[in-house]
Amino acid sequence: MPTTTESGEPDHPTVADLGEFGLIERVTRLRQQPDGTLLGPGDDAAVVLAPDGRVVATTDVLVEGVHFRLDWSTPEQVGGKAAAANLADIAAMGAVPTALLAALVCPPETPAQTAEGLAVGLWAQARAVGVGVVGGDVASGPAIVMSVTALGDLQGRTPVTRAGAGAGEVVAMCGRLGWSAAGLAVLTRGFRSPVALVNAHRLPEPPYSAGPQAAQAGATAMIDVSDGLLADLGHIARASGVSIDVRAADLEVPARLAEIGSAVGVDPLRWVLTGGEDHALVATFGGAVPDGWRVIGEVLAARDEPAVTVDGREYGDATGWDHFGPPTHGRGAP
Amino acid sequence: MPTTTESGEPDHPTVADLGEFGLIERVTRLRQQPDGTLLGPGDDAAVVLAPDGRVVATTDVLVEGVHFRLDWSTPEQVGGKAAAANLADIAAMGAVPTALLAALVCPPETPAQTAEGLAVGLWAQARAVGVGVVGGDVASGPAIVMSVTALGDLQGRTPVTRAGAGAGEVVAMCGRLGWSAAGLAVLTRGFRSPVALVNAHRLPEPPYSAGPQAAQAGATAMIDVSDGLLADLGHIARASGVSIDVRAADLEVPARLAEIGSAVGVDPLRWVLTGGEDHALVATFGGAVPDGWRVIGEVLAARDEPAVTVDGREYGDATGWDHFGPPTHGRGAP
Repeated sequence: MPTTTESGEPDHPTVADLGEFGLIERVTRLRQQPDGTLLGPGDDAAVVLAPDGRVVATTDVLVEGVHFRLDWSTPEQVGGKAAAANLADIAAMGAVPTALLAALVCPPETPAQTAEGLAVGLWAQARAVGVGVVGGDVASGPAIVMSVTALGDLQGRTPVTRAGAGAGEVVAMCGRLGWSAAGLAVLTRGFRSPVALVNAHRLPEPPYSAGPQAAQAGATAMIDVSDGLLADLGHIARASGVSIDVRAADLEVPARLAEIGSAVGVDPLRWVLTGGEDHALVATFGGAVPDGWRVIGEVLAARDEPAVTVDGREYGDATGWDHFGPPTHGRGAP
Repeated sequence: MPTTTESGEPDHPTVADLGEFGLIERVTRLRQQPDGTLLGPGDDAAVVLAPDGRVVATTDVLVEGVHFRLDWSTPEQVGGKAAAANLADIAAMGAVPTALLAALVCPPETPAQTAEGLAVGLWAQARAVGVGVVGGDVASGPAIVMSVTALGDLQGRTPVTRAGAGAGEVVAMCGRLGWSAAGLAVLTRGFRSPVALVNAHRLPEPPYSAGPQAAQAGATAMIDVSDGLLADLGHIARASGVSIDVRAADLEVPARLAEIGSAVGVDPLRWVLTGGEDHALVATFGGAVPDGWRVIGEVLAARDEPAVTVDGREYGDATGWDHFGPPTHGRGAP
C-alpha cells in the first residue's frame, strides 16, 4: 500500500492509482494547442488543418528494452525520441509537421511520473516544431510501448520520395551521423560520458527544416537516416534503380567520435556509415545543394543491381538494423 | 531449428525468420491502395488526400491479454477489431475515413502467419470502408501490441463533438449494444456459442455510415460506444454540461441476449447499458432523427452536476472500463 498525502493521494502514484482517465487528464491538462489544431484531445478524434488538401502521415513505435532503457534515458528523452523519429520522417518527405498522436502502453505499476515524463518529452518536441499532441490512447500491457503518429503538410510541394534519384546527381546530407551509435557504444560499455554523444543517443536532433528546404531546392530523392547511412542510401538506390557511391573523405568524422572510437577500439567511420537514429537527412540533387547541406557522394547508373559503395567498394557488414534480430537495446552499430 | 522447405524457407516461419523487412514485404505486397492514397507504404511517410482542408485523426491501441486473446479470436478478427475501433471514432465525428496506419509489436517467436493475419484483418476492414492501410511500423516486444491510427475527412461538415447537446433534445442510437459484452460473458465461461454473440465480441460491426448521416441530419453531439452506453453518454453529459435520461423500455434487448442472460444469470439490460466495444453510435438531435436511428432517451438540464440516469434513477455500478483496473481480457461488463 503506497503512502498517501493528507489529501488522500498516494505520494508516488502509479498509473493504476490514477486510472486511465486520471492519467489522460494529467498528460493533457494545461497543454496549449497551436492554431492549426482545430480540435485537440478529449473527443473521439482530433481535427487538424490540412491546408494543402493532402496530408502526410507516418507511424513509429518504440519498445522498452528494445529501443530504449529507462536506466539510460529519462522518460522525457524517450518521449522526445519517439516524436523525433516521426517528425524526421515528415521532414524527409519535404513536408512540415502539423500534429502528433501517441498511444502509450505501460504496466499498471509504472510510476505516474514516468508516463507523465514521456508526455512531457513528446510535447517538448511538438512545441519546438510548432505542433500539438492532438490525440492518443493509453492502455496497460507488459512493457512500455510508445507508438507515435505524425501528420504533415506539403505546402503545395511535390513529396520527395526515395524513388527519384538519377545517375549523375550528387548525394548530400544535413545533420549528424554516427553520434547516436557512438553514444550507444559508450552506454553499453557502462560509461555515461562524453555527455554530448550519450545525449545524442538519448534524444536526437534531426534537422527538421532542412527537409522542406531540400524539397524547395529540387531534391530528387530523400530519406532520414534511421537505420544507418549505407542502409538508408540502399533504400534510395533500390527505390530509384540506381547505385550510390559515398566518398569517405567527404564525410565528417568529428574529433569526439574519433577520440571515443580510439578509446573503445572502433573505427569511428563505421559509426558514421552504419549508425542509425541520428535522423540526419540525405538527399539527391541534380542541381545546386542548399546551404547547410554537405555533398558526400554521387548517384551512378546501377550495373547489375542497385548497390551502395564507399569509395567504389562494398563496405562490410552494413546491413542496418533488423527489429527481429538479437536485442542490442538500441538501433545501429554498437 | 524449424523444418524447412526445399527452397530453404522454414515451413512455419516466425517473424524473426522473416526479419523486419521480410515481414513488411509480406504484409504490404499485393495490397491495392484506393485512389485517395497518393503514396502508400514503403517510403518515409504516406501521402493521403485531405479534400476538406482539415484532417480528422484518432489512435487506438490493442494489447494481447488485455484487449484480446488469440485463443478466443483469430489474428484476422483482432486486426479487424483494431481497425473498427478507430474507424468508429472517425464516424463519431461525422467524418468518412480516408486511411489507416498501423504499428505492430510482437515477440520474435510469433508465427509469421499471426502477423500476416493481423494485417489481413486490418485490410479487410479498410477495404470495406474504401480506404487503404497506408503506412506502419513493426518492432519486437514482449507481447503483441497493435496500435492503429485512422484519418478521416469531414466533407465540409462541422465536426460533431461530445460538447453540443442541449436540454430538450432527444438521444438516439444506431447499431448494436450489449452484444460484445454478452459474447465476452459466453467466452469467459468457456463456451463458444451462440456464435453471433461471440463473433460480435471478436469483431464488432459499427454502423460507420450512420456517423456522417447523423452529422448531415444536424446531430448536436455524438460518440461511439466503446466503454458502455451509460459511460459514453456520461462523456457527452459532462462535455455538454447537461444530464441525460435513458428510457429502458426504448432500448432493444434482443431475444438472444435475453436467453443467454437467463442462462448465465445476468440481466441482459446490464449488457445493453454498460457493455462496450460494439461501437454503436449515440447522438443527440434537436430535430428529426434520421432513418435507422432509434430514440432512447432525452437531454435534460443538469441539476447540480451532469448525470446519466435510467428512467430517472442512477444505474448502479455503471462506471465503464478502466484500462489500469484489474484485467478481464476484454472491455465492458463481463
